[in-house]
Amino acid sequence: MPIHTPAWVRDAVFYQIFPDRFARSGRVPFDAPPEPWDSPPTTYGFKGGDLDGVTDRLDYLQDLGVTAIYFCPIFASAANHRYHTYDYMTVDPLLGGNDALRRLLDGAHERDMKIVLDGVFNHASRGFWQFQHVLENGAASPYREWFHFDPARLTHRKPFQPYPSEEAAAELRAGHGSLEAVGYAAWWNLPALPKFNTDCPAVREFLLSVAEYWVQFGIDGWRLDVPNEIDDDSFWGEFRQRVRAINPDTYIVGEVWGEASRWLQGDMWDAVMNYQITAACLGFFGGDKLDLEEARRPSSFSHVRAFSAQEFADQVARVTGMYDPEIVASQLNLLDSHDMPRFVTCCGGDKHALKMAWLFLCTSAGAPCIYYGDEVGVDGAHDPDCRKGFPQNEADWDTNLRDWYADCIALRKAHPATRSTNKTLLQAKDSAVAFLSKADGQNIVSAFNAGTREVLLDLQLPTAQPWNVLLATGPGLELKSTSNGVTLLLPGRSAVVAGA
Amino acid sequence: MPIHTPAWVRDAVFYQIFPDRFARSGRVPFDAPPEPWDSPPTTYGFKGGDLDGVTDRLDYLQDLGVTAIYFCPIFASAANHRYHTYDYMTVDPLLGGNDALRRLLDGAHERDMKIVLDGVFNHASRGFWQFQHVLENGAASPYREWFHFDPARLTHRKPFQPYPSEEAAAELRAGHGSLEAVGYAAWWNLPALPKFNTDCPAVREFLLSVAEYWVQFGIDGWRLDVPNEIDDDSFWGEFRQRVRAINPDTYIVGEVWGEASRWLQGDMWDAVMNYQITAACLGFFGGDKLDLEEARRPSSFSHVRAFSAQEFADQVARVTGMYDPEIVASQLNLLDSHDMPRFVTCCGGDKHALKMAWLFLCTSAGAPCIYYGDEVGVDGAHDPDCRKGFPQNEADWDTNLRDWYADCIALRKAHPATRSTNKTLLQAKDSAVAFLSKADGQNIVSAFNAGTREVLLDLQLPTAQPWNVLLATGPGLELKSTSNGVTLLLPGRSAVVAGA
Repeated sequence: MPIHTPAWVRDAVFYQIFPDRFARSGRVPFDAPPEPWDSPPTTYGFKGGDLDGVTDRLDYLQDLGVTAIYFCPIFASAANHRYHTYDYMTVDPLLGGNDALRRLLDGAHERDMKIVLDGVFNHASRGFWQFQHVLENGAASPYREWFHFDPARLTHRKPFQPYPSEEAAAELRAGHGSLEAVGYAAWWNLPALPKFNTDCPAVREFLLSVAEYWVQFGIDGWRLDVPNEIDDDSFWGEFRQRVRAINPDTYIVGEVWGEASRWLQGDMWDAVMNYQITAACLGFFGGDKLDLEEARRPSSFSHVRAFSAQEFADQVARVTGMYDPEIVASQLNLLDSHDMPRFVTCCGGDKHALKMAWLFLCTSAGAPCIYYGDEVGVDGAHDPDCRKGFPQNEADWDTNLRDWYADCIALRKAHPATRSTNKTLLQAKDSAVAFLSKADGQNIVSAFNAGTREVLLDLQLPTAQPWNVLLATGPGLELKSTSNGVTLLLPGRSAVVAGA
Repeated sequence: MPIHTPAWVRDAVFYQIFPDRFARSGRVPFDAPPEPWDSPPTTYGFKGGDLDGVTDRLDYLQDLGVTAIYFCPIFASAANHRYHTYDYMTVDPLLGGNDALRRLLDGAHERDMKIVLDGVFNHASRGFWQFQHVLENGAASPYREWFHFDPARLTHRKPFQPYPSEEAAAELRAGHGSLEAVGYAAWWNLPALPKFNTDCPAVREFLLSVAEYWVQFGIDGWRLDVPNEIDDDSFWGEFRQRVRAINPDTYIVGEVWGEASRWLQGDMWDAVMNYQITAACLGFFGGDKLDLEEARRPSSFSHVRAFSAQEFADQVARVTGMYDPEIVASQLNLLDSHDMPRFVTCCGGDKHALKMAWLFLCTSAGAPCIYYGDEVGVDGAHDPDCRKGFPQNEADWDTNLRDWYADCIALRKAHPATRSTNKTLLQAKDSAVAFLSKADGQNIVSAFNAGTREVLLDLQLPTAQPWNVLLATGPGLELKSTSNGVTLLLPGRSAVVAGA
């Protein structure tokens, strides 16, 4: 079937915000003070970021070149990450409530900036209305089909254990399923996250109406949390039809760390969070700084390893070859997120790695996405450390890095070839790799040397026009035209983009 | 201080509705069928009554003479009685949501009928937002001051047990407090009902703003659930000021089964649910049919006992003498409620007792209140049996009884003296008692014989006018004028009202 993805995504630059940690407006009251903004993040602590704080900083994001924001969940949830949804129809009061989202949408749309929300449809929280209704009433609740319950507990013969006793917790630790240990199926057997029974018509209708409601409200897309766990193509097919009927430009991007062809045939989602390219970037740009122990912390990243230039080129070809070009051009390309250590931390704190990788994303098809704070040098180990408060004091920002981020974005906007799916490998040699991207008669060469020693590349190019350096990580590189292309001397840990 | 109660209450006839059990509109979808309407009520079962069902039956209530409805709780709650509030700003979706309340208010107000809601401000439910927030986050939650928590659980050293494990349940059964057994203070140590910390400014503001919100929405009064457990006069003083500022005619009636002078000085509430008069009526009108075992089921009714006519008269004098006449005229006088066995059941099923008692309430100062279904002969033992579905089939109604209810109400409306606080004992003799009520130059005699044998009363009356029977339970009574009053021959189990 023909694949249609929203045109705006192909040209978009995303910024991912963890709402509790990006910015605090100071206008949302806290009944008891949150933890200090600059203290190390904790599992349960709130720092008090809110949506008006984001609205106040839209100019900052616009100056950076950002055109779309992807938010981690914002609906009412008794967790700082808000993946435990309490009320799908209400923006968390600690984030400012629905009115704050209205102000944010208005402010963003005035700037032609899109807003994508995180949709957690696989599971609710143990505080969720229909779930609590069954905990209280057992089989007598009209919501008894909404989740997967242990029949013995539905009849009150045995107590549910949503907040497990020490005994129930021990059972879980011993590997018993949550259905057995606490009385219901839960995501990863975590009692906080009861899994919806999406075979129940009322549940489907509820979830799909939530998806519709917020698109109607004005959001521009849904990032879908663990959507592969709703193992039902008809659900996602209907999801697409219903949100697209309201706004045909709604972006639908699934969180799938692995291969995702099943959902990317044009009838379900537009894209996935491209953790496959993340892994490739870590393995290559990390170079000898790659901290494998840290990088492998996310369970899906246990395979991450160092790549030579040729291996990286193979990975890039593999990842971009997985899907239709329309999908590739719509992927959400990211270096890190709230679910993994910061890229710079995986690379032993080396900002050269980050700068090269960001330039690589900005010269690749698919929308590059900045995880908030990466652009000013925020580091952080695995969750919760990767969720620090964005530095409030500009003196703590790496403005050189931020300027690099802005320069890469500006380059991407100025040169459509950077976003083209027509991208080929020119050469992979030692620790260096070069690609050629084409669009609208324009050619772009992007080249990266992840090693510490300089590499000389001899690139055959399809045009005799003079090639000019458009952007480079630093001094020391040499670009010379040859009869059929250029030679490129790349210092260690450097990258360059040239155009003709 | 001068006492001002809403004028409308003094002339009101209330009807108490248990929302799940009065009437089903059929327009609220249930995801799984509720239990059969006519089956015996169960602890957890829902029968599916809703607010539109009530709106559909406003004509029935109007025909009966009802002028005000007092609803058991209607806000979102995972319990069929809805005392476990989940969301104070939302009418339970199973009752039709906020829109259904709007329709009900409009329909009632068109008929000049008032709506009083049940306000459960002492405790929330274990599903309540701010409570769940602390269960999840412990001391890191900004809501940590909203309830009374065990410090050891706040720091996650020990799990909260809102749904107690078998061990925690055993501790509770052994008499340990909920703070110790499950980690927080709860009403009657019931884990479902965490007690608010009303010393926390945010909690006060929340509860008072809820009270304001619904008065602004259009309700005419608050019945306060266990309000004496908020042991803080300043709270109730502010409560009164704030709701009265919005609508000076807002009725505030507390659920206090005992003496309540503390709150009835004019600066807090207007009235209480007059369970003191209930107990007196049971003791007298029950006569030899009084089922003490059933009547004493509510913990506050352990003192209920049979009364002679003189004892009853003493009780009436005691109860009406407790408070200022302005308060007495505004009391909510009831024969039974959702919290006790039906009056008729306490009286061994004897409807004479019910008829006499209802006439007594209708000839007493204070607003008489019908517990839904009493008027058609619904019986029921202690909770949950006292919460049966209102018979759907008119063939199952005792229409004779209903007509009696209507006649008593009509009498009350036609004769202001019935509502007067100027009521004196004329005579108490054997099993019979007679009262004289005066208002606007009108005199009313009400007389009741709770025994099985006839009693002759010789009543001295202040007027030489002829006395006429206005209403009587049945034939056989004889009323004769004397030089200074009347003689009244009352058959066993009968009552009469005469006017001059």
